[in-house]
This record gives sequence, C-alpha cells and structure tokens, in this order.
Amino acid sequence: MSRFNVEVRVTPRPGLLDPQGKAVQHALDSLGYAGVESVRVGKLLALELEADDSAAARAMAEEMCRKLLANPVTEDFRIQVAEVDVVEAE
Amino acid sequence: MSRFNVEVRVTPRPGLLDPQGKAVQHALDSLGYAGVESVRVGKLLALELEADDSAAARAMAEEMCRKLLANPVTEDFRIQVAEVDVVEAE
Repeated sequence: MSRFNVEVRVTPRPGLLDPQGKAVQHALDSLGYAGVESVRVGKLLALELEADDSAAARAMAEEMCRKLLANPVTEDFRIQVAEVDVVEAE
Repeated sequence: MSRFNVEVRVTPRPGLLDPQGKAVQHALDSLGYAGVESVRVGKLLALELEADDSAAARAMAEEMCRKLLANPVTEDFRIQVAEVDVVEAE
C-alpha cells in the first residue's frame, strides 16, 4: 500500500446559478470593488489515501465524488493524484 | 483595462482543526472507505476581474482575501492570475 495526496476540485457547472458566488460578488461590490465581472465558488478537498497504486487511488476518489463529495446535477469535479514518498530514518 | 481570471484557493491552516473535513472523513468511513487518512476542506473561488495589469489584479485579489474571502486567523490563501485574451470578430 502506498500513500497518495488527492486533490478534488468541485465547481458549480457552467451556466447554472451559483448563489454563493453571487453573494460574494455583491459583498465585494458593497466594499467598493468595481470591475468584478463574476464570482464562482467551489470546494477544494485535500485527501490523504492509502491505496495499492495511483489508478486505485484515482478510482476510489472518483467513486467518493459520485457518492458524497459532489452533486452530479449541479457540480463538476476534477481529481489530481500525487504519490507521497515516505522516507523513514532508522 | 484588461480582463483577468483569478483563482483563489482558501485552505484551513495546517495544524488547526477542520471540522468540515472531519465530518467528510467520518461520512466516507461510514460509506465503507477504509484508508482515508485525512480530509481537509477549503474553498476555490474563480473571479473575473477588470484591472490595468496583472500586478493590479493580484493586489486587488489579495486585498479582497484579507477583507472578505479568507479568515486570516484560521485560513491561508493562494492567488493565481491569468490574463484573458479577448478576440472580437468585426
């Protein structure tokens, strides 16, 4: 088993309303920031997984996204997997 | 004025508790995923800004983070700025 750092980006689907983004945009406007054309708010998840290999870690993360981390109707997700080199001194 | 795509990553500071991440970790555990060592949940903001140049867009985004987008006590932020080439056909 190896250890993997998995980064999952969950973003609102293009074209769909993003109420959280709109709220942030209005708040920035109230603070006096002109020139903010749009704001979209997503989630950024950093997971540490134990898995046999990189492909297994990716498959596990994809299943997690479909089951729990993302809403398939309103959100897209992107997964990035990096193996962690663990060096232990004796 | 040019247009810039600004990506802001807001993440819980290392060492601080991340209750949202813990909740996701427990939920994944309940779904039967063994091997999830840790989960940290942050925000991913995509902004479209009008600014004079890349440095101005970055400075504006940094100020927004300090004032509104991130909590300086509990969160770190990272900003990435990309200029958008707009080509308009006549």
